[in-house]
Parts: sequence; structure tokens; C-alpha cells
Amino acid sequence: MTSYLITGCSRGIGLELATQLASSSDVSTIFATARKESPALKDLIQKSNGRVVLIHLEATDSSSIKQAAVDVKKALGGNGLDVLINNAGIQDYTPKGPSTMSADDMTNIFSTNVIAVHLITQAFLPLLEKGNLKKIVNVTSTLGSIGLAGTFLQAPTPAYKISKAALNMLTVQYAYQQADAGFTIFCISPGWLKTDLGGVDYADLEVGVGAKAVLDKVSAATKNDNGTFMNIHVKEYENAEGANIYDGKNPPW
Amino acid sequence: MTSYLITGCSRGIGLELATQLASSSDVSTIFATARKESPALKDLIQKSNGRVVLIHLEATDSSSIKQAAVDVKKALGGNGLDVLINNAGIQDYTPKGPSTMSADDMTNIFSTNVIAVHLITQAFLPLLEKGNLKKIVNVTSTLGSIGLAGTFLQAPTPAYKISKAALNMLTVQYAYQQADAGFTIFCISPGWLKTDLGGVDYADLEVGVGAKAVLDKVSAATKNDNGTFMNIHVKEYENAEGANIYDGKNPPW
Ligand SMILES: NC(=O)c1ccc[n+]([C@@H]2O[C@H](COP(=O)([O-])OP(=O)(O)OC[C@H]3O[C@@H](n4cnc5c(N)ncnc54)[C@H](OP(=O)(O)O)[C@@H]3O)[C@@H](O)[C@H]2O)c1
Ligand SMILES: NC(=O)c1ccc[n+]([C@@H]2O[C@H](COP(=O)([O-])OP(=O)(O)OC[C@H]3O[C@@H](n4cnc5c(N)ncnc54)[C@H](OP(=O)(O)O)[C@@H]3O)[C@@H](O)[C@H]2O)c1
Repeated sequence: MTSYLITGCSRGIGLELATQLASSSDVSTIFATARKESPALKDLIQKSNGRVVLIHLEATDSSSIKQAAVDVKKALGGNGLDVLINNAGIQDYTPKGPSTMSADDMTNIFSTNVIAVHLITQAFLPLLEKGNLKKIVNVTSTLGSIGLAGTFLQAPTPAYKISKAALNMLTVQYAYQQADAGFTIFCISPGWLKTDLGGVDYADLEVGVGAKAVLDKVSAATKNDNGTFMNIHVKEYENAEGANIYDGKNPPW
Repeated sequence: MTSYLITGCSRGIGLELATQLASSSDVSTIFATARKESPALKDLIQKSNGRVVLIHLEATDSSSIKQAAVDVKKALGGNGLDVLINNAGIQDYTPKGPSTMSADDMTNIFSTNVIAVHLITQAFLPLLEKGNLKKIVNVTSTLGSIGLAGTFLQAPTPAYKISKAALNMLTVQYAYQQADAGFTIFCISPGWLKTDLGGVDYADLEVGVGAKAVLDKVSAATKNDNGTFMNIHVKEYENAEGANIYDGKNPPW
């Protein structure tokens, strides 16, 4: 029986990950963090027979993160946490390109997408050390691949791309640091999904398809995957070209 | 005759770049920015017959950056700026590894090493557009290579590594955006040099050796190098192994 903590479960990918895990018999508890319980999350929690547990967490507030770790520790009653999924994230909309980026966007997005992931990982490390799987999954994006930057020129989110490249470097450094302690730490791009962030009208995949593909990778991951950058595998898209290829192969950094 | 603007000329690599350029007959003016004129920079300026011009610039203050662009524009009297070298930078000292990084370090280093480079580039773009060479050089580090992270585990600067990976992504995005306007925008690792930042006792190379190797690359760079990540070439080190290889070949992202 596996326990998970997923950040950003009010909506989008986080909510869908929690929903899919809630219907899996291998899962003991899903700690679903939100800064505000949305109606959809409330509904999921009510139907979950206590398996989905709400944890309050504002990712840009270090004391909120520390309190969340205290709350989860208490709820686990001496047990460890098996899997941490750092999913909460934000992006900019900068249609005129990098030279027009706002410094505030850069600061805020770096804070949520990188610093918060660090502080959350740091706060939950002691519980993860006691867990059986010791997996940390950082939800990144192929938009954060420097090598693929030419493929994603049209995506009007330069500050977001910078933050995800930075997140990838954070992930790899944690992976090396925690390798000897038996951790499997990686980042994964969930595909371009129909969420508020991805854009419901334009994105490639239903959120359920991407979330399932992420969970497939998370459960299959072994220590050999420590420090990698994964892409999801979706059979119908494995021979696609360019931006929307979901062949399950690791993208370049 | 080429004009340069170099940030962070009070000491270290920036001071050395300005010093070497000041003795080159191809160079018209070197705008040497500093937040405070150091004795060494003052000395260089005094001996330069007006070729080295002090520009006040505090990289974390956007109004200081804007004022610097106004000052340089005035000094250029209608001419363009040929080469911008974003050199100013800071690093953390985090010997216990990424899980012990301070959020303040992450914020401050991202601000100086990434946001400031963006704001400076943005502010000087109009002058660079009028320049003859249209080169923008961002001083990065092989420590910012995600692919080489395993080679640099011993370097106790996780927040700096993250900032340089982020800087690389910034660089590539600018390169794509400005390619059609004839720009050559790249990042370069100057080698591990004996400066306050590099560590005078442990670093591989004298600052003069690294600065010369950087300037060799800057002058040789053509539009084909737009969007690349360069390493310096130092003959004695081209067959070195691991961390201190200076073979002039582009490192992985
Ligand atoms: N959708 C895509 O196509 C796509 C593609 C690649 C990667 N991703 C990544 O997938 C992750 C989830 O994206 P999504 O599409 O599900 O986005 P979304 O629908 O906009 O949801 C974002 C989630 O993050 C939470 N969040 C944002 N800032 C927060 C903060 N400061 N503190 C706590 N929670 C915060 C939001 O909570 P609130 O409801 O309180 O705002 C929400 O739960 C992100 O990391 C994103 O970069 C998405
Ligand atoms: N040395 C190495 O081994 C090495 C290796 C790879 C990359 N690099 C990169 O090379 C660049 C220069 O490094 P260095 O070794 O010459 O470092 P350094 O000796 O510590 O000098 C840093 C320079 O940056 C300036 N600076 C720092 N923060 C600033 C700010 N907020 N506003 C304006 N100026 C600021 C400093 O000015 P003050 O004197 O006012 O502080 C100084 O002039 C950095 O980007 C560094 O990351 C160095």
C-alpha cells in the first residue's frame, strides 16, 4: 500500500492524479494539497472514504510548507511517505517573446515552480526517507528542454521555460545527492493537457490521458531512472512529429 | 572599431576582459559597468586615454539599468553598441548540498544571474540593433550544464548551478527571437578562474588566460554560433579529463 503527496490538487493535473490514484487499490492515502479546497477536490475527498486527505499548502509560503509537513507526519502516525509529486505550477503569458518578459513574472514563476519545489522536497525528505519507495516526481515540461527550444518557439511563455529548465537542474542535483539513500528522483513532462494552464481549447490531450501516462511512468520508475527527464508515452502519439510527440523517451536537457 | 559593454568590471573576469580589450587597437570604447568603482578599475580607466568609460550599474535595480542605457546612448552619440558581455554574477556556498539551499540564496542569485541579464539585454537591445556586430555574450558556467551535473558534484553551489541552467535557457530564447535581426547571442563558460568567485587558491587558470580565451571565442563567433553554449579553448587543457577540460567544444545543456 502506497502513500502519495501531490501538490496543486485544486484543479488540473493534480486533481486528476489524485482522482485516478483514489480508485487504485494499491494506494493507501493521497495527501492532496491545495491552498484553497475547490468544489471538485471537496467532492473527491467526500467520495474517497478517507483515502484522499486535504492538506493546506501555499507553495510560496515557507511556513505553510513546514506546517503541511507537520500535518502529514501526524496523519501518517509514524509511517513514512512513499511518493511526493511536485505538481503545482504557474506560467506567464508573454506573446511578444523573451525581450518583453516582466521581471515580476520571472520572480514569481521561479518562486512557485522552483524554490517551492525545493522547500517542499526539503520539508518532506524526512518522511520520504522512512517511506518504502522514496520517489520524488517533479512535474516539468518539454518547454523546459533547452535542446528542444526551437520546437517550442510558438509557446508564449519564456519565464515558464526558464523556470522549468531551472527545475530540471534542481531535480538532477537532488537525484545525485539522495542516490545513496535509495531515492528515485526525476522530472516528467505530462504532455500538453487540456487544463487552465495548458489551454482547454488547444492542448493535445485530455487531462485524464496525460495523468494516466504520468502515473504509469511513476509506478514503473526504478532507481535506474534517478536523475532523468521523462516524457509520457501515449500510443497514438508515439510517432507524432515535433512538439506533440509522446513516445516515452527521455527528452534532451 | 568595436564598442563593448561589460558588466561587473570592478574585479575578476570583467576587469580583466576590460583590461585586455583596452590594449587592443580594434576597440573603440569599452563601457565598463560597476556598482562601485574599485581602485583597480579606476586605475585602468585613468590609463586608458578615454577608451574605458565607467558606467554605474547595479544589476538588481531596474532603474539603474535603464539609467545606464541612457548614459551609454549619450556617450555613443548616435552610434550603436557592438558587443554586450553580461558578466556580473554571484554564487552561493552550500557545502551540505541542494537539500540545504537557502531560499534567499536562490532568489538573490536568480535575480543577479538571470533576471538582471534579461533586463540589461532588454535595455541595450536598441543600441545593439544599431551596432555592427550585434553580439550578446552571457557568461555562464559548465556548472550550469545539466548534462554535466555528475562531473561537478563537488562544487558546493547548487543555487548557482540552477541559475546558470536558467541563464542558458534565457540565452537560447533570445537567440531564437533575435536571429532574424542578425544577432549572435550565446553563452560561454570562461573556465575555472582564480577570482574571488572562482577561488584564488583552487581554480585551474589565471584570470588572464580565461579572459583571453573568452575574447578569442567572442571575436571568432559568427551567426552560426547563435544560441550555442561555448567552452573556452586552452591548448594545455584540451585533453584534460572531467571537470577541467577546456577543449573549446560546446558542452551539453
Ligand atoms: N497542462 C499542461 O499542458 C502542462 C504541460 C506541461 C507541464 N505542466 C505542468 O503541470 C503542472 C500542473 O499544471 P496544470 O496544467 O494542472 O495547471 P493548472 O490547471 O493551472 O493548475 C495549477 C495547480 O497549481 C496550483 N498552484 C499554483 N500556484 C500555487 C501556489 N503558490 N501554492 C499552491 N498551489 C499552487 C493551483 O492551485 P490554485 O487553484 O489555488 O491556483 C492548481 O492546483 C504544472 O507544474 C505545469 O507546469 C502542465
Ligand atoms: N571565476 C570562475 O571560475 C568562473 C567560472 C565560471 C563562470 N564564472 C562567471 O564569470 C562571471 C564573473 O565572475 P568572477 O569570477 O569575475 O566573479 P567576481 O570576481 O566575484 O566578480 C563578480 C563581479 O560581478 C559584479 N556584481 C555582482 N553582483 C552585482 C550586482 N548586483 N550589480 C552589479 N555588479 C555585480 C561584482 O561587482 P562588486 O565588486 O560590486 O561586487 C564583480 O564585478 C560570473 O557570471 C561568474 O558566474 C566565473
